[in-house]
Amino acid sequence: MITSTSNEKIKHVTLLVSNAKARRKEGVFVVEGERIAREIPREALLECYVSDDFPSAKNLKEVFGYDVDPIIVSSAVFKKMSDTQSPQGILCVCRRRDTSAGDFVAARSSGELRLLILEGVQDPGNLGTMIRTAEGAGFDAVIADTDTVDVYNPKVTRSTMGSLFRVPVMYTHDLPGTVDMLKDSSVKVYAAHLDGNKSFDEEQYGSRTAFLIGNEGNGLSDEITQKADELIRIPMKGKLESLNVAVAAALLMYAAASE
Amino acid sequence: MITSTSNEKIKHVTLLVSNAKARRKEGVFVVEGERIAREIPREALLECYVSDDFPSAKNLKEVFGYDVDPIIVSSAVFKKMSDTQSPQGILCVCRRRDTSAGDFVAARSSGELRLLILEGVQDPGNLGTMIRTAEGAGFDAVIADTDTVDVYNPKVTRSTMGSLFRVPVMYTHDLPGTVDMLKDSSVKVYAAHLDGNKSFDEEQYGSRTAFLIGNEGNGLSDEITQKADELIRIPMKGKLESLNVAVAAALLMYAAASE
Repeated sequence: MITSTSNEKIKHVTLLVSNAKARRKEGVFVVEGERIAREIPREALLECYVSDDFPSAKNLKEVFGYDVDPIIVSSAVFKKMSDTQSPQGILCVCRRRDTSAGDFVAARSSGELRLLILEGVQDPGNLGTMIRTAEGAGFDAVIADTDTVDVYNPKVTRSTMGSLFRVPVMYTHDLPGTVDMLKDSSVKVYAAHLDGNKSFDEEQYGSRTAFLIGNEGNGLSDEITQKADELIRIPMKGKLESLNVAVAAALLMYAAASE
Repeated sequence: MITSTSNEKIKHVTLLVSNAKARRKEGVFVVEGERIAREIPREALLECYVSDDFPSAKNLKEVFGYDVDPIIVSSAVFKKMSDTQSPQGILCVCRRRDTSAGDFVAARSSGELRLLILEGVQDPGNLGTMIRTAEGAGFDAVIADTDTVDVYNPKVTRSTMGSLFRVPVMYTHDLPGTVDMLKDSSVKVYAAHLDGNKSFDEEQYGSRTAFLIGNEGNGLSDEITQKADELIRIPMKGKLESLNVAVAAALLMYAAASE
């Protein structure tokens, strides 16, 4: 059992919890809590830290569904590592699945392909909810520009409820180029826009569809909006100027979900 | 200009910002920021506090669209009153619109009526998003049980983006009784449920429709679920156990939105 916070392993994990750059450099991310631990596939799990007062410490196989060799730490040390107010006593370091957006699209040049494309989404909860909804609607992946919040931020990983392990999320430094690539690959690209001619629920979506979703306050940039094949409208009653971005994305993805 | 935090007015507003009971007792709530201030109808505005460094302090009529006599406070005092990390310099005390759920339903015994009914929703952001979406979908009101988070919590008022001033939100101590009353009033009551026979997008919703939405972790209680006229299902791909509650509510409300 590790009882000192100056232990090298502990210092390293504490850095990973707080520092996005360190996580990116090592190609890892950290998740906390039993609920999300249940969702970690074997190939993604690198290290599992368990507090000595964690109730299921003796039966981790039941949590993971496969054998895990945990690193036991004292509850004081665990508290120090944890990102949450009330630590649940289990924290895992996971391997990222680092496919580039370009490679992903290139590998899917035919067949069904449904994508959510994000530009500058800032709120971790919104991003997490969109990944979760993408899984529910059967979308194949989420592609985000580098102005979008880090998907491996602990607040996002929690709000995805495990979807992060099942829906690939890829960042691109060149969103306009990625959209062009999708269009060249016969993916029809839609942008939700107040000026859209057609209501989102009147469109017949094909099996190769992408939706562009913009920043919470400012929406999509003009550059990206102009790249869309079609602008669609989500009708709004009352005096509302916009819907929450995760709600808008959900309405669109479910309208275009596979049968 | 008020420059002391021991001023009686300031002490009173600070109490209202932090204390739900005090707000309820006085039938008021507090909102912060210019964006939401723009949405306050004249009849709801009781007091407007403005920091002396607020850029639009001299032109509040442009913000509100009607004449407002502000109480100017020093920026140090404003910081003390504010609930946010970076105060925007404008804070308003507003009057609640306190209609009971029973009176509201009784007054609408015929004609169109679309309602969202909440049981034990805990997350302020989810509640705020649902009120905002309710306006967009043209729903007439939100009714919540008293286990649902306080709609006048500053975190909720912010996330409604002004919809709180336009969509009535009512609390009921007797949710089962309210649901019975709706059914007696020819409102068809649906519950989203994994066991639902019909997919939510296959139903023909009438003009008198209510959706029951439950707690984030536990869903609807059995008692309330059993009161529904029909259980409907939101299909989910992948291994997802549930959608975010505000996403589920949005899919349902938009499926039943008026034309």
